[in-house]
Formats: sequence, C-alpha cells, structure tokens
Amino acid sequence: MSKGKVIVVAAPSGCGKSTIINAILEAGDLDLRFSVSATTRPPRPGEKDGVNYYFMSEEQFRDAIAEGEFIEYEEVYPGRFYGTLRSDVDRIINEGHNIVLDIDVNGALGVKEIYGPDAITVFIEPPSVAELRHRLESRGTESPEVIDERIDRAEYELSKAPLFDRRVVNDQLERAIHDVHNLIDGFTSL
Amino acid sequence: MSKGKVIVVAAPSGCGKSTIINAILEAGDLDLRFSVSATTRPPRPGEKDGVNYYFMSEEQFRDAIAEGEFIEYEEVYPGRFYGTLRSDVDRIINEGHNIVLDIDVNGALGVKEIYGPDAITVFIEPPSVAELRHRLESRGTESPEVIDERIDRAEYELSKAPLFDRRVVNDQLERAIHDVHNLIDGFTSL
Repeated sequence: MSKGKVIVVAAPSGCGKSTIINAILEAGDLDLRFSVSATTRPPRPGEKDGVNYYFMSEEQFRDAIAEGEFIEYEEVYPGRFYGTLRSDVDRIINEGHNIVLDIDVNGALGVKEIYGPDAITVFIEPPSVAELRHRLESRGTESPEVIDERIDRAEYELSKAPLFDRRVVNDQLERAIHDVHNLIDGFTSL
Repeated sequence: MSKGKVIVVAAPSGCGKSTIINAILEAGDLDLRFSVSATTRPPRPGEKDGVNYYFMSEEQFRDAIAEGEFIEYEEVYPGRFYGTLRSDVDRIINEGHNIVLDIDVNGALGVKEIYGPDAITVFIEPPSVAELRHRLESRGTESPEVIDERIDRAEYELSKAPLFDRRVVNDQLERAIHDVHNLIDGFTSL
C-alpha cells in the first residue's frame, strides 16, 4: 500500500474556498479524507474520541502546542482550542488515504515544509482585489471597517501566492472547481 | 453641550448585528457616530490621518497596547493591527455626539466597566442555537468544522448575555431593527 498525499487548500476569505472543497468532496470520485480535529470542548452525547474529535484537556492541549504537535490551532475563546495534530495527518496518509487540509496561508506553507513532495499547496485567488471587495460588500453583512480589514489581510495573503505549488483563479466557479479537482486527481495519481 | 453616550452592540457571529446597525445608521434620525480606528496599515492615496484612520507605526501601536490605550484591538496578520482608542471614544462623546461600538462580547463588557452609566450594552441574540446553526449552514460557504467552532463560540458568548444591559432577539429582522433603534433613541435622549 502506498502512502497517501497531503493536499492543502488556502485562500483569502471570500474567495469561495469552502464551496470548491465541498463540491469536490461531493463529487466523490477522489479518495479524500479530512483530519479529525483535536479540541478542548467536552464531548457531546454520542460523540466518540478519535471519531468526531480528539478530546483533550486544556493542559494536554497546551502541552501539545509546546511540543510542536499541531500543524495549526486556534483559540476560539479563552481556553477553548481547536487544532490539527500532525500525528493525525500522519495516521491518515500512512493508511494510504489522501487528506485535504483547509487551513490559512501561513499554515499551508508550514505543512509544505513538513511534508515536502508528499504535499501539494493550492492557492485559490479572487480575479482581483476589487472583485473580492465587491463580493464582500454585496453580502451586505459586514461593516465597511471589517471589509477594509479583510481586504488588507487578503492583500497580505495574496503576496504569499507565489510560494504555493499551484494557483487557481476563481473567476468562474464551475471552472475553478474543475481545475482544483483535476489538480488533486493528477497529484494523487502520481 | 451635554456629553454623548456610548452604545455597544455585540452578538455571536451570524446573528445579523451588522445588518441591524447599518439599518439604524441609514435611517439617519439618530445622532450616531463611529469611532476612527487606529491601524498600522500605511495610508493609501487620499487617506488622512485622524479622518480615515489614525495611522501608527507598529512600535507606537504596541506601546499603546501596553499603556492600556485600546478599548479593543486585533492583529489581522503578523504586525498588522487595528484597534479602537479610548481617547477617540472620549473625543467623540466630549464633543456631544453618541458613538456606536461594534465589538466582541468581552470587549463590550470592558467598555461598560470604563464608561459605566454613560454606556449601554446591547446583546443581539439568535432565536436559538439550533436556528443559528441553520443560518450558518444555509449560507453554504463554511465547512462543518468551522460551523461547529462558530456554534461553540456562540454558546460561550450567549452565556455572557445576562451581563448586558439589554437583550434583543433577532427572530424577525424588522422588529429587531425597530427594537434596537428604540433602545438607542431612549438611552440617548436621557
């Protein structure tokens, strides 16, 4: 059994990343898994450790951060952490499955450093910053100031695009889905 | 000239807060201002210091954080900060204008501690956590895991609702806008 591959998809907020990933997963023709996240949230009834999440105490989680065991993590409010364990990614690829990681731009580049040629990093771009601003504004749910911060962050993230293995412009959703699908299909068939 | 009032509106993500605030500002019958944010972003052509933003160096910004000069701040990517200066809020209310602060739940409670009876804190609630989950899911743009994290954070924020001066349930948007408008109108007329 050959080892699986790591596919990392990153994009500025509002570029349609989740829509593209969901469409590819729903197509169902590629062997793609998601990782099981670790969290300090207590299990809800029926949730199983290692299936829904890896449930950890705050102390365990902080220790794992200090040991560099996370590919990425986030503190969603004080004391409440979510993260992706490197050991979980290793488990999935060692079982021969491919894994999709939906993480931020800096996290994506970190994954490439760890997994090298076993990983492909894909950057989803908006057609232009002006178009991204238009998309965020047309949602009508954010204040101008929040939009300004998003654009600022997007420009920072776009400055990292040349460091990715592949870039896909989401100017037409169906084509972008098709392109990302083919990229993954090609890479996982190597 | 009497001093202006501070209105703080907070809500879990997806509860319609920005939509409600925008509708009230567009109605235009209340004397409401926004603060001018401070940022480490360089000015764009045509932007004026103190009008569009207070432009600060990263060192100035970090010093201001250390001195407790910010009501709230955020690092949108490494080295790029945005925040609300207490001195700016003071300036606006000392000029006799009311100010609306659109900040997070913990930030809102901090503002109340600073401004006491000159501030009112308003919490916008979803009809239920199940309804909030439904709203986030029907957008179709977030992964199940991101939705799970949002819900977790929302539950944490909802646990703080009893600490707010007023609570408004956004089960019907027009009524919620009406209720928040009336709350602000009543408070600023005191």
